[in-house]
Amino acid sequence: MPETVLEKTEGRVSYHDSVEKMLVRIREDGMSNVFDRYAAQEKIRCKFCLQGLSCQQCSQGPCRINEKGEQDRGVCGIGPDAMAMRKLLHQNIMGAGTYSHHAYEAYRTLKATAEGKTPFKIKDVNKLKWMCEKLGINTNQEANKMAVQLADLLENQQRIGTEEPNLMVEAFAPKKRKEVWRNLNLYPAGTMHEEQNCVASCLTNVDGNYVSLATKALRLGLATIYNSQIGLEMVQDILFGTPQPHEVNVDLGIMDPEYVNIVFNGHQPWAGAAMIEKAHSSEVQQKAKDAGAKGLRVVGSIETGQELLQRYAMDEVFVGLMGNWLAIEPLLATGTVDVLAMEENCSPPSIDMYAEKYQATLVSISTIIDIPGLQHKIPYDPSKVDQMVDTLIDLGIDNFTKRKGKIKPMVPQTITKAIAGFSTEAVLGALGNKLDPLVEVIAAGKIKGVVALANCSTLRNGPHDWNTVNLTKELIKKDILVVAGGCGNHSLEVAGLCNLESINMAGPGLKEVCSALKIPPVLSFGTCTDTGRISMLVSALADHLDVDVPQLPIAVTAPEWMEQKATIDGVFAVAFGAYTHLSPTPFVTGGPQLVKLLTEDVEGLTGGKIALGDDPVEVANSIEAHIMAKRKGLGLR
Amino acid sequence: MPETVLEKTEGRVSYHDSVEKMLVRIREDGMSNVFDRYAAQEKIRCKFCLQGLSCQQCSQGPCRINEKGEQDRGVCGIGPDAMAMRKLLHQNIMGAGTYSHHAYEAYRTLKATAEGKTPFKIKDVNKLKWMCEKLGINTNQEANKMAVQLADLLENQQRIGTEEPNLMVEAFAPKKRKEVWRNLNLYPAGTMHEEQNCVASCLTNVDGNYVSLATKALRLGLATIYNSQIGLEMVQDILFGTPQPHEVNVDLGIMDPEYVNIVFNGHQPWAGAAMIEKAHSSEVQQKAKDAGAKGLRVVGSIETGQELLQRYAMDEVFVGLMGNWLAIEPLLATGTVDVLAMEENCSPPSIDMYAEKYQATLVSISTIIDIPGLQHKIPYDPSKVDQMVDTLIDLGIDNFTKRKGKIKPMVPQTITKAIAGFSTEAVLGALGNKLDPLVEVIAAGKIKGVVALANCSTLRNGPHDWNTVNLTKELIKKDILVVAGGCGNHSLEVAGLCNLESINMAGPGLKEVCSALKIPPVLSFGTCTDTGRISMLVSALADHLDVDVPQLPIAVTAPEWMEQKATIDGVFAVAFGAYTHLSPTPFVTGGPQLVKLLTEDVEGLTGGKIALGDDPVEVANSIEAHIMAKRKGLGLR
Repeated sequence: MPETVLEKTEGRVSYHDSVEKMLVRIREDGMSNVFDRYAAQEKIRCKFCLQGLSCQQCSQGPCRINEKGEQDRGVCGIGPDAMAMRKLLHQNIMGAGTYSHHAYEAYRTLKATAEGKTPFKIKDVNKLKWMCEKLGINTNQEANKMAVQLADLLENQQRIGTEEPNLMVEAFAPKKRKEVWRNLNLYPAGTMHEEQNCVASCLTNVDGNYVSLATKALRLGLATIYNSQIGLEMVQDILFGTPQPHEVNVDLGIMDPEYVNIVFNGHQPWAGAAMIEKAHSSEVQQKAKDAGAKGLRVVGSIETGQELLQRYAMDEVFVGLMGNWLAIEPLLATGTVDVLAMEENCSPPSIDMYAEKYQATLVSISTIIDIPGLQHKIPYDPSKVDQMVDTLIDLGIDNFTKRKGKIKPMVPQTITKAIAGFSTEAVLGALGNKLDPLVEVIAAGKIKGVVALANCSTLRNGPHDWNTVNLTKELIKKDILVVAGGCGNHSLEVAGLCNLESINMAGPGLKEVCSALKIPPVLSFGTCTDTGRISMLVSALADHLDVDVPQLPIAVTAPEWMEQKATIDGVFAVAFGAYTHLSPTPFVTGGPQLVKLLTEDVEGLTGGKIALGDDPVEVANSIEAHIMAKRKGLGLR
Repeated sequence: MPETVLEKTEGRVSYHDSVEKMLVRIREDGMSNVFDRYAAQEKIRCKFCLQGLSCQQCSQGPCRINEKGEQDRGVCGIGPDAMAMRKLLHQNIMGAGTYSHHAYEAYRTLKATAEGKTPFKIKDVNKLKWMCEKLGINTNQEANKMAVQLADLLENQQRIGTEEPNLMVEAFAPKKRKEVWRNLNLYPAGTMHEEQNCVASCLTNVDGNYVSLATKALRLGLATIYNSQIGLEMVQDILFGTPQPHEVNVDLGIMDPEYVNIVFNGHQPWAGAAMIEKAHSSEVQQKAKDAGAKGLRVVGSIETGQELLQRYAMDEVFVGLMGNWLAIEPLLATGTVDVLAMEENCSPPSIDMYAEKYQATLVSISTIIDIPGLQHKIPYDPSKVDQMVDTLIDLGIDNFTKRKGKIKPMVPQTITKAIAGFSTEAVLGALGNKLDPLVEVIAAGKIKGVVALANCSTLRNGPHDWNTVNLTKELIKKDILVVAGGCGNHSLEVAGLCNLESINMAGPGLKEVCSALKIPPVLSFGTCTDTGRISMLVSALADHLDVDVPQLPIAVTAPEWMEQKATIDGVFAVAFGAYTHLSPTPFVTGGPQLVKLLTEDVEGLTGGKIALGDDPVEVANSIEAHIMAKRKGLGLR
């Protein structure tokens, strides 16, 4: 299984015309950009790194494992499989660490809200009660008291060691999985405890066994989803409402240069949500008008945008989602952005040159984000969200006065409709609060199966979003329902696969179901952080049918994974028992035993496995074959 | 400042004759070994990796920054300084994570001991009381109750966020440092919180600013030393006694093939301490004799050995310390090891071939250690230490019966004396419990200053231990007292620099002081984990003189840092305000602004900085110059 570096499709760098159009301006303006940097790096790729056979951890390195030479081990003695797996575990740790940091922010925001220190209110009291019931918190008390207890419990669940009960796993994991995990030593402690174990295991001369390292990764994946992701998403539902399907606007065409445009980028909804509420006041709009603008608008960017999109309606103030992370440079080049407020990845490290060229103000609104040239840092503090929003408004208006007349705007006139806001509750709601209708259409073969798509966007396996969009088209054509999260989801929204018109692209069975329910064949489930949310739907299905996850006609795909959060989502999926397609191929191909473990042997343990492949048609065929085999196992045609 | 790859001194791979002798056997037996693997890797080093200009984090990579080509940034847009600093921060995180894992084990061991669940007793009740007083725990209660509260408090101190008071920093940091750290945003939360922040910051597209990344590293360093290292070492003192100076035996000559030899390797003393106590029973010795051995012996290896060495006397059962991590393969090749019990780094990943060839039994006695071919895993659980020790005895005796007659032993007949067991308390004790005598000899210029040496052992800058030993010889010749920790300390012990004979190598002033006090010119302060312990002595000196750390005539050196714990110790030293020499040069030289920050500009902030240099004579001169400048600042000649 050699590493694969696909050539890009001739003449294009993005699936989206809007991005292609902006790139003309970017290149004309002589700006460094992610697409051209990718092309430049293609000329000097390291083959050892691509295979996971390079290590720079200690001063006796850097080492390379050279299968054809005398260097069959690193200086310490580590072999190829462990070297590659340790690098993958490093990526997993980064993903887990970032999700757990997001969860930390969510839990302290809930607590501060319950203590009256934030501008937020508890919007979904039913969800708060439901969570408290699931976790053994007394629900016969005032909502804010419940919320404080829930916040403390959830934060503590992130930190628990192996001795304490994992309440989140007990509450949210499929019934039949828990014993599997116990038997395989995969049943996790809290995210931070597993993270600490994994970090310590990556030290030079600690864990040189690829099987042991892989086991740790799987356990970390489970901890991350149950003790961080599901908790944080449920808390965001409690604070901002559980997502419900509604029509939204996406793509760069949502930008209007005549407005003060404040863009929220990253993954965390706090400041964006507060801004949407505040920007509806006539004072704020008047302030913007006084500065010569038509008003002040809030724009969603990547996952933060999605978090807002699925909970707020489109209107004069909140205008939609611009796209995913590879569209950030193009967005800035439109010359319409007044503030880019950043709180998590992806906040690319060289957009300061865009801010300078196209007059945008970059602001870090997090405790961790920084980039060179950043002039405004407002570390997130739940009790200071209101002042933060005021500052952002002032910075935005100030930028507008500088931008207006100086920067010639250029906005691709493309706005696409999408239906965002699916959630397990929304799906169940559409089905009359029971799963039987879904089971029936699956049993009848109208829907062959369900694929969860959760990932980023990368240039490695073709133009921006090309693989994600094409794979999804193939899947829905085969009557496979797609449930999407992450930057990949935004690519599908922008590509028009999440609206009702796309029903026509579905196969006959799926078309019938979608038409009847008035849902698209691709359900926009949210962000990469909603991987846990998607698992809840699968868990409900497994428990409803009294089967285990590996028996279900489902699969997971990450057709354009880019960063490290995607790797921990992928590792979780394997532990969860899912057939998990990844493209591009992770940097593990130099470890033949490791590849065998991840793509074959692990199936005999967790029931899940990693499947590779960069061609959307072939991948769709493989996923279909897997789903058909599982249908057969359940006695379905 | 180009990266430096020194040639090895012709004809030798180790400073130590014992290791050189064993290497003859190892090579004759055709065994892969760390020395020859180093030579092989030297042929294919990656220049990009050496400079920190290679990144393999995301699927758009691997990227290289090529100063001479068009690749001036990674695909994401990251520049050379941030790319290199992020890699260094990764190393720091691994070090911090491993120390915090060690601390977790220490705190739960203390708690389990207080609850009567371990074979241990609280040996140093005074220290327990002292710690409780410093941390605000009521000392008018029974020792075990105090210990439970202390254990809980210390574990919580590892986890605290920014809102909770950092009791450890308040109790142990030099008075004048705290304000400096507050002003620089370096005042830390708990280790795990800082670790989480740093891990999340390393994700692709989160922190692309080398200054911000470096600030996070410094804060992580402070958290690690105060909230993990000092706590864990004080707990080990409470459980096993505060180290006191006494004569010990070191080097491979301590091995006797006629005994069942159980070797403890790593950093954590739990099982080794329990074994020393138990192995003194006639039952255990008789059991070994019944199997044909002369008895059963306990051998210390690397840091675990040092932890035991400084708290237990040499006798028929506990025979000393074999050396540091590069001596592990040579130790196994003696054909005298029956059990190598491993609980932390350095447990090299390909010693299974040595175990097979020379009939040794490898056992992981930790929750994180694994290596290929490992057949015995006993995850550490404080309540099961006693059974663990019994199992190790059985495995050792069983191995002896297999080894005896089958493997021809070969033991280099070198045993060196060293005085181990210095601690802040012991130093103060030797001075009549006051610091004035030390201040007086420094003021009089008999001792020009103090250098803390804490590090590993590497082949990168010369033969095994060559740089550490030679730099130390130069320093003591210049009347500079050396306080040593880590694998570097073992190298000095084995090289004969920690015994009274070495007084003759010191300059006249230091010679006079050492002769009067009957101490060597190199004080063996323990392991790399004792970096915090060494800082306590410096803090006492600073507070006693009512000056800040950067004013003192002190320096830190890591003349052979190898792994990631050394990097976090080094980063701590810079935040602490110390001139910090590192060799080999870390992989940061591709970032010119970063190099300037770490080696120059940071001095204007923390008062500390990194100094580079691989030549022991030149480095000693630079350190002396620094110390003389600081003496001048204090009005001393």
